[in-house]
Amino acid sequence: MKPLILVSNDDGIHASGVHALIDVLVNLGEVVVVCPDSPQSGQSMAITSNSMLRIKQVEDYNGAKMYKVNGTPVDCIKLAMHTVLCRKPDLVVSGINHGSNASINAMYSGTMGAAFEGCAFGIPSIGFSLTDHSADADFTYCLSFVETISKAVIEKGLPEGVALNVNIPDCFPHPTEMRLTKGCKGKWTDEYKEYVDPSGKKFYLLTGKFINEEPDNTDTDEWCLSHGIVSVVPVALDRTAPISNCKISQLLT
Amino acid sequence: MKPLILVSNDDGIHASGVHALIDVLVNLGEVVVVCPDSPQSGQSMAITSNSMLRIKQVEDYNGAKMYKVNGTPVDCIKLAMHTVLCRKPDLVVSGINHGSNASINAMYSGTMGAAFEGCAFGIPSIGFSLTDHSADADFTYCLSFVETISKAVIEKGLPEGVALNVNIPDCFPHPTEMRLTKGCKGKWTDEYKEYVDPSGKKFYLLTGKFINEEPDNTDTDEWCLSHGIVSVVPVALDRTAPISNCKISQLLT
Repeated sequence: MKPLILVSNDDGIHASGVHALIDVLVNLGEVVVVCPDSPQSGQSMAITSNSMLRIKQVEDYNGAKMYKVNGTPVDCIKLAMHTVLCRKPDLVVSGINHGSNASINAMYSGTMGAAFEGCAFGIPSIGFSLTDHSADADFTYCLSFVETISKAVIEKGLPEGVALNVNIPDCFPHPTEMRLTKGCKGKWTDEYKEYVDPSGKKFYLLTGKFINEEPDNTDTDEWCLSHGIVSVVPVALDRTAPISNCKISQLLT
Repeated sequence: MKPLILVSNDDGIHASGVHALIDVLVNLGEVVVVCPDSPQSGQSMAITSNSMLRIKQVEDYNGAKMYKVNGTPVDCIKLAMHTVLCRKPDLVVSGINHGSNASINAMYSGTMGAAFEGCAFGIPSIGFSLTDHSADADFTYCLSFVETISKAVIEKGLPEGVALNVNIPDCFPHPTEMRLTKGCKGKWTDEYKEYVDPSGKKFYLLTGKFINEEPDNTDTDEWCLSHGIVSVVPVALDRTAPISNCKISQLLT
């Protein structure tokens, strides 16, 4: 039996990134795609409660069955598992995201939300992102990395509770190397632009500048990306920090 | 100068849980409250992009300045930092949530989303939850725990990149003990109820049963809660898993 691969994303079912992903994955197994029906960037692991969720089959693409959901990336994975799939997938792949999910961006990322949800179901899961936000980003040179990593994960699996966050730099010459690394310390600043509506009331739109807080640390995803290297960060579903930490223990005494 | 405490939640500005929280925190410092204007349960670290955000001051409560935002818990923290506060808070507190945020629930939790966002700003941050979903939950016996932990965190701080996820069991006799523990392995099953709308089309509403995957492990938040003990889990903002893990290293070779 061919491996079963569940695909989702956060840019929505019409994004070119997910089509690039499918083009590769149909060579590795049976592909079922369940994506949001509209862009869901920045949805993290948000779930829809108290409102009606619908899942609708749309036209096949390149041999893959395609479905759209009026919800978040996590909703897509949950509904796929509940309503569409007859067996547990061998792999969940999310992306390819239009834009970086390195450093702190991984926390807000809907792409990674879907990968974490796959991980919560005990399925080896990967999120892929390209550091180019544009709708017509060129994903062609991402495909060999997607294939290599996806194939390896199907064959070897991943440790329980761990997913992969893969970021591919938008650079020329195109990347030829990938490296296992870790999330960079970083933050966003100047996050809102202020506007005044016609009635005189203020409103805000999200924007901002990313600040790398450890630019000289060669052992981070941001360093890899700025040096033309594909970064692969293993990320844990459970966020429990080591509890041997003395400072925290003292709090309760 | 009194400590500055920023408060948010995911149940919205009218929830009784946040009022209980404020009642305690006004004794510890100057309190500014920025909450969603509507319930935002399950919003994780979702952020609002590409739509208009507004922040509006409403009537003071018990000496605390109160604001509401038409967005997620993370939006509330970001907008508070950007538009309301003149200095960096000494503490961010989110909650008290109506319902458990133990185990995997912490991943979807908007309450914890706000706490993680506080953490991202480098502020010691805590999420408090009571394992009672009802709108009229009795928060009175939570207050001494909120006070003890908040006071300790103001005084001693928290390690960089680490927040606290505090869950208080809804039980009688009321809890008298708290314990430093870790997130329990667990999952949700039977997550959707299927309906048919008047036009014959299916839709789904979120529901589900929680399954504790390590019921005999005494070193988990779920064990504490089922034994009448307040659980305190230190949680990391960054999710990078240890990269020494051989199985992952092999993937790239």
